Amino acid sequence: MATNEQLSKFLATAVDAAKKAGEVIRNGFYQTKNVEHKGQYRKSSSLESEEMDWLTDVDLVTETDKACEELVFNHLKQFYPDHKFIGEETTAAYGATELTDDPTWIVDPLDGTTNFVHGFPFVCVSIGLTIGKVPVVGVVYNPIMNELFTGVRGQGAFLNGKPIQVSSKDELVNCLLATETGTKRDKATVDTTTNRINSLLFKVRSVRMSGSCALNLCGIACGRLDLFYESGYGGAWDVAAGIVIVEEAGGRVFDPSGKDHDITVSRIAASNPLIKDSFTEAFRQVE
Amino acid sequence: MATNEQLSKFLATAVDAAKKAGEVIRNGFYQTKNVEHKGQYRKSSSLESEEMDWLTDVDLVTETDKACEELVFNHLKQFYPDHKFIGEETTAAYGATELTDDPTWIVDPLDGTTNFVHGFPFVCVSIGLTIGKVPVVGVVYNPIMNELFTGVRGQGAFLNGKPIQVSSKDELVNCLLATETGTKRDKATVDTTTNRINSLLFKVRSVRMSGSCALNLCGIACGRLDLFYESGYGGAWDVAAGIVIVEEAGGRVFDPSGKDHDITVSRIAASNPLIKDSFTEAFRQVE
Repeated sequence: MATNEQLSKFLATAVDAAKKAGEVIRNGFYQTKNVEHKGQYRKSSSLESEEMDWLTDVDLVTETDKACEELVFNHLKQFYPDHKFIGEETTAAYGATELTDDPTWIVDPLDGTTNFVHGFPFVCVSIGLTIGKVPVVGVVYNPIMNELFTGVRGQGAFLNGKPIQVSSKDELVNCLLATETGTKRDKATVDTTTNRINSLLFKVRSVRMSGSCALNLCGIACGRLDLFYESGYGGAWDVAAGIVIVEEAGGRVFDPSGKDHDITVSRIAASNPLIKDSFTEAFRQVE
Repeated sequence: MATNEQLSKFLATAVDAAKKAGEVIRNGFYQTKNVEHKGQYRKSSSLESEEMDWLTDVDLVTETDKACEELVFNHLKQFYPDHKFIGEETTAAYGATELTDDPTWIVDPLDGTTNFVHGFPFVCVSIGLTIGKVPVVGVVYNPIMNELFTGVRGQGAFLNGKPIQVSSKDELVNCLLATETGTKRDKATVDTTTNRINSLLFKVRSVRMSGSCALNLCGIACGRLDLFYESGYGGAWDVAAGIVIVEEAGGRVFDPSGKDHDITVSRIAASNPLIKDSFTEAFRQVE
C-alpha cells in the first residue's frame, strides 16, 4: 500500500493531467465538433446487433475524447512508467485490460460525450488510481463549470480545494435522485429504466438526469444530490475516481441491491450513510 | 406596440433587475438555507388534498425567492410605475392576476427552487414582459453558471451578449430531449410522465432533466438541447421570458399537441423549426 505522501504525489500528478485534458475539452466544447460514432469502434465486440444499431446512432465519441486520453496517459506515464493503465478509448480500440492489484490508472478522458457534442455543460475528465483493486485517488474535473473534485483515501474530498461532504438527508421524500437512461434502447432495458423512475418518483422529491456518471457521483459527494444509481454505464473508468471522492466525503458506494459494489460490474449506487438502507429497500421493490 | 428603442430600454432595466436578484440568489446558494414549504402558501388554493400533501413535502420556497421578487418588482416599478406585474410569489400569496393587453412584467424570481435548496446549479431569475399578451422582452439569468440569456422581439437572442440560435437537428434520433417530472405525485400524473419518457426514449438520443423550465427553454434557444416539453409547471412566469428568447433564436414554442402555445395553460414544448413536426407527431403517439 502507498504512503500518504505517495498518495498526495499521485493526486498532484493526476490534477495536472486533468487540467491539461480540461483545456482540450473546453476548447472543443465551444467549437464545431467533428463527431465520429462510437459504434464504429465496437464492431468486434460481443454486443447484440440490435444494440449495435442503437450505439451507432446514440453513442458518440469525439476527437477530443481520444486526444484527452492520450494526453492524460502520456502525462501519467512520464511520472509512473511502471503503473498500469486502463482507459475508455484504449479499451474500445484494443479490448479490455484486466484489473490487477498493481497500481492502475483508470481514466475516462471525457465523461458526458453526448453532453459534449450538444454543448450541455455537464462534461468532465475522470482519473482514478486503484491499488490492490481499491480506488485510492480520484480526480474529476469539469472544465466548463470550472469544478475540480478530488479525493485521496484517508485524506478527505474537496471541490476546488474546499472540503466537501455528503448531505444529511435521512428521508427519501426530501431527497434529490440522479439517474441516467443510458445508451441501450432495447425494450427490456428501456422498460426497466422507466419503471424504476416511475416507482421511485412516488418516494423521492425529484429526479435529475445530467448525463455524466462521474459528475453524478461528485454531486453525491458535495451534497447537491442525495441519491444516485445507474445500470449499464460504460465501465470502471466512469466510477473509479468518483468512488474515492464519495467515500472520502463520508458517503457510501454500493450495488443498487445493497450488496458491495463490484468495480468490474456496470451497476452502481451512491448516497449518504443515513439514507442508504431506505434507498436500497425502495430500489429492491422495483427490481 | 412599443418601438424598438422602448423595447431596448425595457430590456436594459430588466437585465439590471436580474443582476440584482442574481446576486441575492448567488449568496443564498452558497449558504445554509432557511427553507419554508411552498405548500403553506397554497392552503387556500383549489388543489386536491392529495396533491397538497405532496406539495408540502416536495415543493419548496425559500426566503431568497420572496426577497428576489420584491427586489425585481421594486426595480421595475421605479421605472415603469404604470406597468402591471405578475409574480410567482405574489400570486401564491394573493391569488392570480389576470393577464391583460397592458404592458405586464411576468417574473419568476427563482426558477429551480428545488435545485436552489439542494445546491444543484440550474437556478435562475426569469423576467418577461408581455404587451398585448405577447412576450416581447425576456431575461433569464443563471448567477451560478454566470449565464445571461436575453431576447427582444425583432432584435434577436443572446447569451452573455453573443447571438445564439437553435440547433439544426432534423432527426429525432440525434436529438437531446429535456423534460421534467414536475411536483405532482398522483398516480395518473406520474404514470403519464414516465410513459411519455418510455415512448420517447426509443426515438431520441437521450433525456436530460435539470429542474428549471426557464433554463430548459434557454437550452433550446442556444442549441444545447433540441427538444423540450413540460406539463403542469407553475405558471406563465416559468415561460414568459423563455418564449421570446427561443423565438428570437429561431425556435418554435408550441403546445405539445402541435397547436399554438397558450401562455395561460401550463403546457409547453419548444424546438427548432425543422424538428417540430416529428416531435409533435412522436408526442401525439403517447398522449
